[in-house]
Amino acid sequence: MGQMLRPWKTILNLEIGADKAVFQQIADGLIAEIIKGRLKPGMSLPGSRILAEDIGLNRKTVVLAYEQLIAEGWLETVYKKGTFVSEKLPIQKTRRKQRNEESISSVKNFSFTAYNEGIPANIPTDVPLIVFNDGLPDVKLAPLDELARAYKRIFQQKARWRMLGYANERGEERLRIALSMMLSMDRALNFNVNQICITRGSQMALYLTAQVLVKPGDFVAIENPGYRPAFDVFKHAGAIMLPVGLDEQGIDVKQLEELCKSQAIKAVYVTPHHQFPTTVSMKVDRRLQLLNLSNQYGFAIIEDDYDHDYHFGSRSLQPLASYANAHNVIYISSLSKLIAPAVRVGYVAGPESFIDSLAALRMTIDRQGDPVMEHAVAELMEEGLVNKHAKKALGIYRERRAMMVKYLDLYMKEVADYELPEGGLAFWLVFKKPVNTIQLAAQLLNNGVQVISTERFSFDEQPLNALRLGYASLEATEMERGLRLIVASLIPARY
Amino acid sequence: MGQMLRPWKTILNLEIGADKAVFQQIADGLIAEIIKGRLKPGMSLPGSRILAEDIGLNRKTVVLAYEQLIAEGWLETVYKKGTFVSEKLPIQKTRRKQRNEESISSVKNFSFTAYNEGIPANIPTDVPLIVFNDGLPDVKLAPLDELARAYKRIFQQKARWRMLGYANERGEERLRIALSMMLSMDRALNFNVNQICITRGSQMALYLTAQVLVKPGDFVAIENPGYRPAFDVFKHAGAIMLPVGLDEQGIDVKQLEELCKSQAIKAVYVTPHHQFPTTVSMKVDRRLQLLNLSNQYGFAIIEDDYDHDYHFGSRSLQPLASYANAHNVIYISSLSKLIAPAVRVGYVAGPESFIDSLAALRMTIDRQGDPVMEHAVAELMEEGLVNKHAKKALGIYRERRAMMVKYLDLYMKEVADYELPEGGLAFWLVFKKPVNTIQLAAQLLNNGVQVISTERFSFDEQPLNALRLGYASLEATEMERGLRLIVASLIPARY
Repeated sequence: MGQMLRPWKTILNLEIGADKAVFQQIADGLIAEIIKGRLKPGMSLPGSRILAEDIGLNRKTVVLAYEQLIAEGWLETVYKKGTFVSEKLPIQKTRRKQRNEESISSVKNFSFTAYNEGIPANIPTDVPLIVFNDGLPDVKLAPLDELARAYKRIFQQKARWRMLGYANERGEERLRIALSMMLSMDRALNFNVNQICITRGSQMALYLTAQVLVKPGDFVAIENPGYRPAFDVFKHAGAIMLPVGLDEQGIDVKQLEELCKSQAIKAVYVTPHHQFPTTVSMKVDRRLQLLNLSNQYGFAIIEDDYDHDYHFGSRSLQPLASYANAHNVIYISSLSKLIAPAVRVGYVAGPESFIDSLAALRMTIDRQGDPVMEHAVAELMEEGLVNKHAKKALGIYRERRAMMVKYLDLYMKEVADYELPEGGLAFWLVFKKPVNTIQLAAQLLNNGVQVISTERFSFDEQPLNALRLGYASLEATEMERGLRLIVASLIPARY
Repeated sequence: MGQMLRPWKTILNLEIGADKAVFQQIADGLIAEIIKGRLKPGMSLPGSRILAEDIGLNRKTVVLAYEQLIAEGWLETVYKKGTFVSEKLPIQKTRRKQRNEESISSVKNFSFTAYNEGIPANIPTDVPLIVFNDGLPDVKLAPLDELARAYKRIFQQKARWRMLGYANERGEERLRIALSMMLSMDRALNFNVNQICITRGSQMALYLTAQVLVKPGDFVAIENPGYRPAFDVFKHAGAIMLPVGLDEQGIDVKQLEELCKSQAIKAVYVTPHHQFPTTVSMKVDRRLQLLNLSNQYGFAIIEDDYDHDYHFGSRSLQPLASYANAHNVIYISSLSKLIAPAVRVGYVAGPESFIDSLAALRMTIDRQGDPVMEHAVAELMEEGLVNKHAKKALGIYRERRAMMVKYLDLYMKEVADYELPEGGLAFWLVFKKPVNTIQLAAQLLNNGVQVISTERFSFDEQPLNALRLGYASLEATEMERGLRLIVASLIPARY
């Protein structure tokens, strides 16, 4: 070992009292020397006694390190000769190739926009930033005590361990039964447990649906402006997206029909209950027109009923999927907006053969859901707590909506058009005069107000002359201040 | 309304005391009649008083139903004339098209094998079925009380609502820190928090990696026999899989090198710690050979270190990703096998740019993970409870492994070859004479013993002359009885 100029203690860089056992530090240090090429195949190592003395440690410690390295194939012992760096190690004698980053960095070029739904990554707690989000529920209203109790009960069950093995990839049957009953009673939807697959939020429901339904090159019609995470899903599935315009009832069926005449459309993605982002509700006649078109041209309707429960009219509109002639409708919804965004319980409902394919793919993506959480949510549903929470939350949001209208009328009437939305937790404002909304958003952020950049909503990623203002988490004073700051940016002279 | 022959009460099919409010039943009944075409656009409806008398209900109830249907666009009122079915409804006068199932049922043909990992869907509780599973941990050992306590504490936190909004798609930073430290201390891996993405079990880690790395038509080398859920992932990504044989150290690098000479291989998927299904461990020299090949030919190594902690040797082997010349290694592992299969915490670690792409795709698939669960798991790690559990479990499994060897030696020595695996929770038996393992599995099931069908392991889905016997959840008596029944099926004369 004459070529080793530095003493072993320095070479091995031992740190007594470190988190790693000393014998492991010795072993790792020797491995590092071998990999760096300073200890070469065939080179002899000092005897354990000599090395122990050199580094000032107990001989046993060194023996332990050697034994390990021998077991792992780094070193070998030759009878009566000593310990050597293994001859079998395929260490290159020459300098190894430089870091070859190419094979990994040549990954597919993903251009999915990070979509933070209006929650800044780091809200400085001392600055009262006013956030007009995408239309999210107020997480502070989430029925957390109820959820915590449900988790606790489930963890205390005798048969709890049954929930901890592998589970059905469609989700726990108990939750599918609860969903099936709720859909039947509240939404006039008839789906049995085999026609429902529980997913990680509506996002996974969308992803699975697109992957199963759409082949690369298929045409998929989408609402424009619309929901970008859905665009991303169809893009990833290789779809050619055809943007369709909107009016006060949602997707323009005449325009859609024209598209159908020139192309074989595989699917149409719609948010009929409260169109995202414009908030408009699709009325019955439009719904029937869309269903008729679907039956005539044989395209699937992907109905994203993402916030069914937040409807302020006499009752929520019946989903497209509930209509007698809804032969090609795949229904997607979620409990996440009702309980809390982080409680990821979405679902897809559709023909059984379709759900079979969906479940097979789901198996490949993440194997299954979270049985403990699914049981907890089922328990909340069975006990009527989800419904109770929905009613309570709706009452609070109704008040906040009224408050929002009051301040909109006070500040925005002059500069923007808006309707009182029948449901959902956001307002859609269209400016009367052209406004550079990118500039506006940047300026507002400096003044402590955050709004969603409207280029996210438009298919071509151009900014719109509009704003979507989610209000559900805001107090009256925040709404007032936020709207005042928006109008002050638009008419600086006035405010 | 002369054309309505049946009385309204029958038509509307009212059920007093049903879960649905009576006015909603009336509204739904009328909608059904409209959709069925018995109430046509323009037809007049009886006045609310008349209908109320006819069906024997309060007039207010009927008014409520009418008001809703008007709001929803089904009906319209004409001043001083009454209530009519809306003329605007695009109801077809002719019989509607028959159920057009085609557009939905023409879904992609998924042939993913349902893979139940050895847990039968319904274990009849009165029959003592002995299950030799895939090598799963014993869910009964899962640290459930600790997990329940962690959940409870998190739900009681003041800032708990912060966890319920949308979260970072890479997973909670707290858990990534805990993982980063564990990887550094226990596995000699240096990944910072931005080089780790937490996933729903290792399955999602595999799925994301394949989707980001592999373009349709790319060549991916896989171990054969190997892990079918990984085959499914690469298949879904459009890869052309090249099966590579194994020896007692795992993947045959010579065969792999030959493949590299004729094709540009994008990635190699390996399970070096304990090859699945054969359980062999890849030694240092083979690891270096594989890394050298990767650097020479520029392919990525996808290292699936799925059960790192279950190693019975002096210590676990250092992952490929920890080697100094591991320039192209993507590292996948999981806590699910340690805590419980249903606690879905896997992760991918790799270059930051790769993890960035992975996270962008993850956003599109299911938005994010479960922050409450991730905090709970992080807490268990921080308190050393995961390590403590791993040690305890390893001790139990070591005893069960010894027991298994005892019974294998007693019953199987004559008919099969097997090695004491260095790690993992299964044995790999190769029969000395040809055995029809499909027939064997069927016969055994009749006798109350379940084994995994070996055609799942082989790339061409042909049965192998082998068995993989997971033992971790079995008591000694079950092992004894199970192995005795297996050998009795093979040599009926003897037993």
